[in-house]
Amino acid sequence: MTYCVGIKLDAGLVFLSDSRTNAGLDQISTFRKMMVYEKAGDRFMVMLSAGNLSISQSVREILQVEKIDNPGGEPLTIWNAPSMFDAVRVLGSAVRRVYDQDGASLKQSGIDFNTSMIFGGQIKGEAMRLFLVYSAGNFIEATRETCFFQIGESKYGKPVLDRMVTPASGLDEAAKCALVSMDSTLKSNLSVGLPLDLLVYERDRFASDKIACIDEHNPYFHMIRSSWGQRLRPVFESIDAPRWDGGDTAHPLSTADCRYEPMRKITHPGEKLV
Amino acid sequence: MTYCVGIKLDAGLVFLSDSRTNAGLDQISTFRKMMVYEKAGDRFMVMLSAGNLSISQSVREILQVEKIDNPGGEPLTIWNAPSMFDAVRVLGSAVRRVYDQDGASLKQSGIDFNTSMIFGGQIKGEAMRLFLVYSAGNFIEATRETCFFQIGESKYGKPVLDRMVTPASGLDEAAKCALVSMDSTLKSNLSVGLPLDLLVYERDRFASDKIACIDEHNPYFHMIRSSWGQRLRPVFESIDAPRWDGGDTAHPLSTADCRYEPMRKITHPGEKLV
Repeated sequence: MTYCVGIKLDAGLVFLSDSRTNAGLDQISTFRKMMVYEKAGDRFMVMLSAGNLSISQSVREILQVEKIDNPGGEPLTIWNAPSMFDAVRVLGSAVRRVYDQDGASLKQSGIDFNTSMIFGGQIKGEAMRLFLVYSAGNFIEATRETCFFQIGESKYGKPVLDRMVTPASGLDEAAKCALVSMDSTLKSNLSVGLPLDLLVYERDRFASDKIACIDEHNPYFHMIRSSWGQRLRPVFESIDAPRWDGGDTAHPLSTADCRYEPMRKITHPGEKLV
Repeated sequence: MTYCVGIKLDAGLVFLSDSRTNAGLDQISTFRKMMVYEKAGDRFMVMLSAGNLSISQSVREILQVEKIDNPGGEPLTIWNAPSMFDAVRVLGSAVRRVYDQDGASLKQSGIDFNTSMIFGGQIKGEAMRLFLVYSAGNFIEATRETCFFQIGESKYGKPVLDRMVTPASGLDEAAKCALVSMDSTLKSNLSVGLPLDLLVYERDRFASDKIACIDEHNPYFHMIRSSWGQRLRPVFESIDAPRWDGGDTAHPLSTADCRYEPMRKITHPGEKLV
């Protein structure tokens, strides 16, 4: 499995990926899932990948030489694409090329063509953009309403992102939130594992020096892992426990105030629905 | 989909279920998923069910009359079973009976025999017990190390249970935690929906008067939904943001302190892995 998240903020982009790959439970390996494509001063792009490792490695390899038709001009590559939209089209084309090469044989072996990618960045002359690419090579783009994408084991870590991240969030705040989200995922799914790759991109920089590889000795992630759970507890405790039909509380928990019927109860000898 | 959780504490048991059932996205209905089986002073049992609704409704119906062999004695039912272990065996047998009736036809229609149940309670002379029953009628029991079970859409709501609930937790605290867990799930999965059924059972009572049906007007759940998110934010903000290679912080986030190689970066013209 895998867990990767990409966030698009007004201030920049945040990318975080784990590095565990597994075939079953007893073949676990470490493979990094983040790639950076950089042309100084012109473009800065990041790809995170999930799914079948043989597919995503092939996609990466092909992406470096993939070309798509550009009527009336040079074929488009990720290095000359005039927009992130064109660059992600090149990536989609690379995915389709791998499908053409491997899809039928994988299917014969009963293996799905399973891959997905988060691809984001900025090309000079354009705003930053963030895409989620599916295994058919099609893609969607992040908007202000939905400003992050997750791939792989996304569910455990989604609530904290939903609650904390908006396009107005600061870059470091979003990086912190991505790490909390990763922490929740690591706690719950053994097939997501360290080290992590974290990259923070500031708008209009076309470069990044905020790139960290985080292993179990990383002091910041260690602090996050211990603080979040610890500090949640007093918050949790600060919320009133239910007061069953309590008269003097603003929010009693009563059997009486539901417009639905009470739950069905069967009393011995068991023939009757009450 | 569905989300149900059952928690076994030293002080008692907590059960919470949603009530949404869907076939696709455009056939959404409300069906309650909690059943209570009560024989005053002798036994108190609760079942939560997830999966194919036709299966779980059939299981419920059959469970009321299901008997299993008891060499040298009366056949066992949920009403005379001397232990919760025997009672859950009766439930497993009811699941298998439905499989015998419907399994082949469902398979012909390409439908999995998909059902799971949380079944817990107490029978006089025995401690409380909590089980998770699978679609093959087999089951596992909660222990002190793993004191809660979830069925249905379990992932969004698991981190908060992992972090907050232990066997020593109080009943009302665990009920509150189950509701926070449900809130995270409701926010993330449209196919989990109100009203909720909440039941809190106190050890050795063989009855419960803490049973609530919670709809969108319930003041306690309304308070939980607004407070948890609101109060998480200052906690989140109280955790230091990353200090990139900051010299004077106890937990810098540095590119330097990982024992793994730095992430791979491809710089234009794109032939070289750095």
